[in-house]
Amino acid sequence: MKRLTGMTMAAVIALAVAPLAAETPNREELVTAVEAQQGTTVKALQDWVALPTIAAEKRGTPEGAEYMRKLALDAGFQQAKIIPTDGVPAVFATLDSGAKTTVGIYFMYDVKQFDPAEWSSPPLDAKLVERPGEGTAIVGRGVVNQKGPQMAFLAAIKAIQASGRKLPVNLVLVAEGEEEVASTHFDQVVAVPEVQAALSTAVGVFIPSANQNRDGSAGITLGAKGAVEFQLVVGGETSDKYPKTDIHSSNHARIESPAWRLVKALDTLVADDGHTPAIDGWFENVQPLTARQKELIAQSVKPDAEAGEKTLLGVGRWINDEDYVTSLERFFSQPTVNIQGLVAGYTGEGGKTVLPGRAEAKLEFRLVPNMTKDEAVTKLRAHLAKRGFDDVQVTVSGGYGPNETEEDSILIRAQKRMFDDSGVPYTIRPRNAGSWPGVVFNGPPLNLPASQFGLGRGGGAHAPNEWFLIESTNPKVYGLDEVTMAYVDYLYALAEEAER
Amino acid sequence: MKRLTGMTMAAVIALAVAPLAAETPNREELVTAVEAQQGTTVKALQDWVALPTIAAEKRGTPEGAEYMRKLALDAGFQQAKIIPTDGVPAVFATLDSGAKTTVGIYFMYDVKQFDPAEWSSPPLDAKLVERPGEGTAIVGRGVVNQKGPQMAFLAAIKAIQASGRKLPVNLVLVAEGEEEVASTHFDQVVAVPEVQAALSTAVGVFIPSANQNRDGSAGITLGAKGAVEFQLVVGGETSDKYPKTDIHSSNHARIESPAWRLVKALDTLVADDGHTPAIDGWFENVQPLTARQKELIAQSVKPDAEAGEKTLLGVGRWINDEDYVTSLERFFSQPTVNIQGLVAGYTGEGGKTVLPGRAEAKLEFRLVPNMTKDEAVTKLRAHLAKRGFDDVQVTVSGGYGPNETEEDSILIRAQKRMFDDSGVPYTIRPRNAGSWPGVVFNGPPLNLPASQFGLGRGGGAHAPNEWFLIESTNPKVYGLDEVTMAYVDYLYALAEEAER
Repeated sequence: MKRLTGMTMAAVIALAVAPLAAETPNREELVTAVEAQQGTTVKALQDWVALPTIAAEKRGTPEGAEYMRKLALDAGFQQAKIIPTDGVPAVFATLDSGAKTTVGIYFMYDVKQFDPAEWSSPPLDAKLVERPGEGTAIVGRGVVNQKGPQMAFLAAIKAIQASGRKLPVNLVLVAEGEEEVASTHFDQVVAVPEVQAALSTAVGVFIPSANQNRDGSAGITLGAKGAVEFQLVVGGETSDKYPKTDIHSSNHARIESPAWRLVKALDTLVADDGHTPAIDGWFENVQPLTARQKELIAQSVKPDAEAGEKTLLGVGRWINDEDYVTSLERFFSQPTVNIQGLVAGYTGEGGKTVLPGRAEAKLEFRLVPNMTKDEAVTKLRAHLAKRGFDDVQVTVSGGYGPNETEEDSILIRAQKRMFDDSGVPYTIRPRNAGSWPGVVFNGPPLNLPASQFGLGRGGGAHAPNEWFLIESTNPKVYGLDEVTMAYVDYLYALAEEAER
Repeated sequence: MKRLTGMTMAAVIALAVAPLAAETPNREELVTAVEAQQGTTVKALQDWVALPTIAAEKRGTPEGAEYMRKLALDAGFQQAKIIPTDGVPAVFATLDSGAKTTVGIYFMYDVKQFDPAEWSSPPLDAKLVERPGEGTAIVGRGVVNQKGPQMAFLAAIKAIQASGRKLPVNLVLVAEGEEEVASTHFDQVVAVPEVQAALSTAVGVFIPSANQNRDGSAGITLGAKGAVEFQLVVGGETSDKYPKTDIHSSNHARIESPAWRLVKALDTLVADDGHTPAIDGWFENVQPLTARQKELIAQSVKPDAEAGEKTLLGVGRWINDEDYVTSLERFFSQPTVNIQGLVAGYTGEGGKTVLPGRAEAKLEFRLVPNMTKDEAVTKLRAHLAKRGFDDVQVTVSGGYGPNETEEDSILIRAQKRMFDDSGVPYTIRPRNAGSWPGVVFNGPPLNLPASQFGLGRGGGAHAPNEWFLIESTNPKVYGLDEVTMAYVDYLYALAEEAER
């Protein structure tokens, strides 16, 4: 999951109190069951962390899918099967409890690359470490993104079953192994008739997440931007105008430069302000924020959040020196063309007299409703072709469009209900500026509500020392058992909202 | 020395014959002396290679200067001293033989960086290796660029002395240890009054080189382009508009991108054709080729050279699909703005969702008469300032202007005489498209002729498996002893041309 750096959930709108969740029957018994299995859950999480699947490195494939299948069966899914794709296989599982309502669950079983040298404890050991001011956290690759929250969800359904009950909803699980490489083949999974048929009965799909703030507050997001990653390459491999390797730089007097050509192509993609996309027709389908969306943003702003966020991001100013609310509106509403990286020729200290034989820019679009991935890629190609950049090779390495879910959908109503019943203060954000492939569920043919849901805390996704809180010292912030109970409560809330 | 890749000396204008050099007195005795000391010379070259000075890595400084000083004293220079600079120290030495004529010699005692893993034999071992079709070569870092030719020159003056003679000319030697980092502090060396006074008595300055072609032909170059290396950096270190580190890419919606800013700045430096410099006033002092220079270029073209050169450079076309002669005119006459390298953010496989906190372009100017380094740098800064790029940091890491020497100078006349007397076929090129810091001698206040001179063959400068021929199997191509004798002959030719 492409987590947000420095995102502030913001705006406490109710005081935090101990979880009540009056709607969940025999809740005390369930709490006992959750607590009884805590050791087993932590151990299961550690075992899972020890077997990383990293699609970019072709590591832990296909073992990760098989492990995911077993985790599902172990949690009570009646069937679980591997779904092959052109890339890393996915897992499809169902749990039919005879309920009236079916809910879809999205898991990612892959994790981000890591460099053990940067970690304070081995990233696959998933050690329990004291985190000052927070409590006891588990530290390991994938613990918050996304194995910890997902393991808590599995623990929730195990606890319901352990207490002799049937789940209040039926479950359809799809778990992919390529989320960290932009879900390249995930649409193939949902297109499998059996998977599509199962999902089409669901009231919506959610991904377990740990999005609780330090003050205990939580957030509901009504969608996420899409993300499309692509690379532009110019060089001997794209035209015989350019050398095949780096050659002596004196030759630039008579030989064209891939690096300059790349600069010229890039320059056309954003306006001179350095941030407004300039691809032909880029804004055609971009929906401006609605009055309600602006209202939600304004409501979510904590008065003291801006300075901390600037510090965290290491900047002194927002684009155009805008105020905080305007910067947030921009954050949630603007589709971007971002340069992730540039690489050509000599990249060490100082200089070296070479004419590079190859130049590459790594870029990414962030898309907002109603843009689509196909639209964005087609427009990019047409834009470059129109300007004669036939020697600039475009490779789309992955991505998906934006997703958006109605505030009055069962999925979101159940979130509000669960938070309200538990006394968890929350804000509603119109959109996550980061991305997750909810469009696979949210777009055609399924057109389902899709959302992230979960309490608890963690950090360091995509970074060293990734952590997920197991025992919280702050009564307003959930540890593993409370997080697990939040999933229990959410499933009951979903059943109740669906049947209202 | 910034050697040319794939440079063709071209156009044989006389048939190669065995060296005669009628002008050198008692030549047979000198040949015997050179041959007698061959083993010593090879061993001395191996010892020198074993002690690399690499300014970029701060390796072998100041040991390299002390070693250079001893080499000079050992070769018969009466005094040799270390000249400190703000960087790596230089060496200044004199050999007064009571002659009427004084000649300046430029040495570089530093070498290019290397990666032993890329070499077929250890780069500091300087092993003797059979080279098919060429003979026995010594393989090691710096053997052709420039320790081999320089060691042959030292062997030449030793041989003259060993045969009981005085040198036909007095010598002033300046040896620098920062040639491979664009001679950053070399002007400080020449500015030392004692050094300047000594050099001002010289008829010119030359650097020993190995520039013989496979067919035995040689070349005379009447100058070289200047080279100025600089880096453009944008990021958190240059403005608080930018993040200090790479952050999550979703933030580009509200935070400026150093990478886009760099692209926008770069884009202004060359025209849309991707090669014509567009810095304000860039061509003001650029001298077009003269009729004689064009004539020399046309004369130097071998009919079958183009295809081989394109293959060597890995290109199918010259700029604008020009013909070979036009491409050579461009090569020798055009001042360039080259991108050596680009680096920002994520540079690995595929993509990564970051907004880079820093973007850097490594660039280099190649300058032609009458441009100067100061002029080029001043124009670059003014160009960027005029367009508001105050947040783009310019760091000039080194460089120097072009040099040009008259065809009828003593230095060049003696080269022609030596080649003619020895039956070495040669062409005259108006300019080397590569660069060497001859402007330090060629420009004010010394205003001396400055040139490269030497026979023999080698290759792989700045690359793995750098080599220099010791025993040549081709009678038209010189091995170490013949190269050494060529320096002997050249010193006599210089004395005779100076006294005509």
